[in-house]
Amino acid sequence: MTETTRYSGAGLVHIKNPHLEAMDEDVLYHLDLGTKTHDLPAMFGDVKFVCVGGSPNRMRSFAQFMHKELGLEGDGEDLADICAGTDRYAMYRVGPVLSISHGMGIPSVSIMLHELIKLLHHAKCRDVTIIRIGTSGGLGVQAGSVVITDRAVDARFQPRFEQVVLGDVVVRGTDLDGGLVEELLACSEAIPDFPTLVGHTMCTYDFYEGQGRLDGALCSFSNEKKLQYLKRAHDAGVRNIEMESTAFAALCGPCGLRGECCPGLPSSSLRGTGLCGYQS
Amino acid sequence: MTETTRYSGAGLVHIKNPHLEAMDEDVLYHLDLGTKTHDLPAMFGDVKFVCVGGSPNRMRSFAQFMHKELGLEGDGEDLADICAGTDRYAMYRVGPVLSISHGMGIPSVSIMLHELIKLLHHAKCRDVTIIRIGTSGGLGVQAGSVVITDRAVDARFQPRFEQVVLGDVVVRGTDLDGGLVEELLACSEAIPDFPTLVGHTMCTYDFYEGQGRLDGALCSFSNEKKLQYLKRAHDAGVRNIEMESTAFAALCGPCGLRGECCPGLPSSSLRGTGLCGYQS
Repeated sequence: MTETTRYSGAGLVHIKNPHLEAMDEDVLYHLDLGTKTHDLPAMFGDVKFVCVGGSPNRMRSFAQFMHKELGLEGDGEDLADICAGTDRYAMYRVGPVLSISHGMGIPSVSIMLHELIKLLHHAKCRDVTIIRIGTSGGLGVQAGSVVITDRAVDARFQPRFEQVVLGDVVVRGTDLDGGLVEELLACSEAIPDFPTLVGHTMCTYDFYEGQGRLDGALCSFSNEKKLQYLKRAHDAGVRNIEMESTAFAALCGPCGLRGECCPGLPSSSLRGTGLCGYQS
Repeated sequence: MTETTRYSGAGLVHIKNPHLEAMDEDVLYHLDLGTKTHDLPAMFGDVKFVCVGGSPNRMRSFAQFMHKELGLEGDGEDLADICAGTDRYAMYRVGPVLSISHGMGIPSVSIMLHELIKLLHHAKCRDVTIIRIGTSGGLGVQAGSVVITDRAVDARFQPRFEQVVLGDVVVRGTDLDGGLVEELLACSEAIPDFPTLVGHTMCTYDFYEGQGRLDGALCSFSNEKKLQYLKRAHDAGVRNIEMESTAFAALCGPCGLRGECCPGLPSSSLRGTGLCGYQS
């Protein structure tokens, strides 16, 4: 962790909610954790990296992979799901790394992130890097590539996230920290045969019509119109498409988590691993 | 099934996508099913009811409950997840009933519904009733109540669903079929101590700020503003709040699935079972 990527307040994760301090108890419903039922600083205080992705099975596999990479004792096959009391999300801890699933789409990842940010805050974690390693679809890039996101954009290629608060639309930025982009790109260059590029990541609310697929239950456009749209996206710098990055950026940013995104993935017809990182 | 709730085309589920007929194979990626790998008419052709809800564990429990209700052989403990090859959704079949999870939020339920509608179409199912039995939060109603939705509305209390298609916003209606509302209400009246009412269901993209919660990682409004918003919602006829109903209505409607919604749930501070039904 370099000094330039450290957030003020000595790297603590903070919340933007004046009501929380006055609450006697904070129940993180969808994680099956809480400030009265769990000693969050003892459980999570020394977490330094959080990796998130859609699928619970894959986040378990990732935790097992990290277990081996870190050279920890045992084979990692018996990792316990910290959120076993709920089936909304799955969470595994391996050394300083938390691996958490977030389901599919902005609403699902938002619920998890609200509760994860509060968890990191209550646990008094410092200098935490958060990376999204979920799937995405590539746009004009080599199959199997990883795209490191320099900008998360919406379906109109704008770096903005519209959040409805009490019925009113609030527009939030999706800024990312260029430092982590460079750091992750440097990491990728140290690995042989690991095709990696930097580009914009487009985030949509819908997988079928929203991403120009012709094989949903509903489809009102031609293949030609689809290709025109995807070309406009590519011309605007979009290199992959997924369903979480703008909310991820907009939620982590205001809470003092600085960073950048680095999702990646395969050809436009394949699915692959994406990364989307934040760093405090 | 009454004649008035039967859709033209002898009750077949249909799709609104001219491209599908020309496809050699239709892979339902997120259900781990497909037209070449599975005999969908044999597996699902006689399905008459589909019940959907967010949590995979609860949808398994519901399937086990239906197993007992239908008086089928065995204790239902060994029901197999038809989508076991993926962890995106879980699906169980009990007699003529399919029980499927959809995760949390509009994007997640939309992916499942696109593939479910295609599944019902490929399987040549007839006269299928679809009911959402996921959770929701009540608004000024008795804890433990079931709200049968007469109208799915957005965060501004309008019966509309905005779908972004190739970057353009398409507004779709969220019409429901009054016949099924009445049918479900009549069913509830036959059960003792089963508080049930008919009302509007508000669907939001966000659980914390979007539903006026004061305990998210971000909160920029006062308790007074929250109460004013919820009062406006109540005055507009909203009796419960969840995160899937408008997309559920807008997706099922154009595909020939007629019906109505009937979500239900507890007091505004509790969570409970919701119903949101469609019928062909």
